Amino acid sequence: MARVSVKTDHDNALVRLGSSIRARRQALSLSQEALADYAGIDRSHMGKIERGERNVTILNLMKIAAAMSCHPSDLLSAAGL
Amino acid sequence: MARVSVKTDHDNALVRLGSSIRARRQALSLSQEALADYAGIDRSHMGKIERGERNVTILNLMKIAAAMSCHPSDLLSAAGL
Repeated sequence: MARVSVKTDHDNALVRLGSSIRARRQALSLSQEALADYAGIDRSHMGKIERGERNVTILNLMKIAAAMSCHPSDLLSAAGL
Repeated sequence: MARVSVKTDHDNALVRLGSSIRARRQALSLSQEALADYAGIDRSHMGKIERGERNVTILNLMKIAAAMSCHPSDLLSAAGL
């Protein structure tokens, strides 16, 4: 059953990372659109990232973190990653 | 000049992350091939990641971190990200 659990584990990690991004955004009272614009990321892509539907790249994570004045590692740690 | 500096900054970040991965791998006396195999990542892709030539995804970073018994955030923090 290892195959299924790895896939589930990965999907779960992306959802947790998306939630971590959303939590920090909401703590800053930023709308999803504003964060996408500040980060230079397409708005619909930003929504998918927050819902855990995208395997985020490091450079996009850097842009998102910079737009919220934190480090990419902060967003990962907050997601337990 | 902001355009150039952002690009340079991003390239620099990928190189620093690759160096962070390489440093931990070498501290564990692992060959690059062994790390690639443990992580389930193509060997040549692994080499490009270590040289900072690839915009690594979170899921690949998770596989690499798991193969070296650490968290993705550890690898990012060690790279100053």
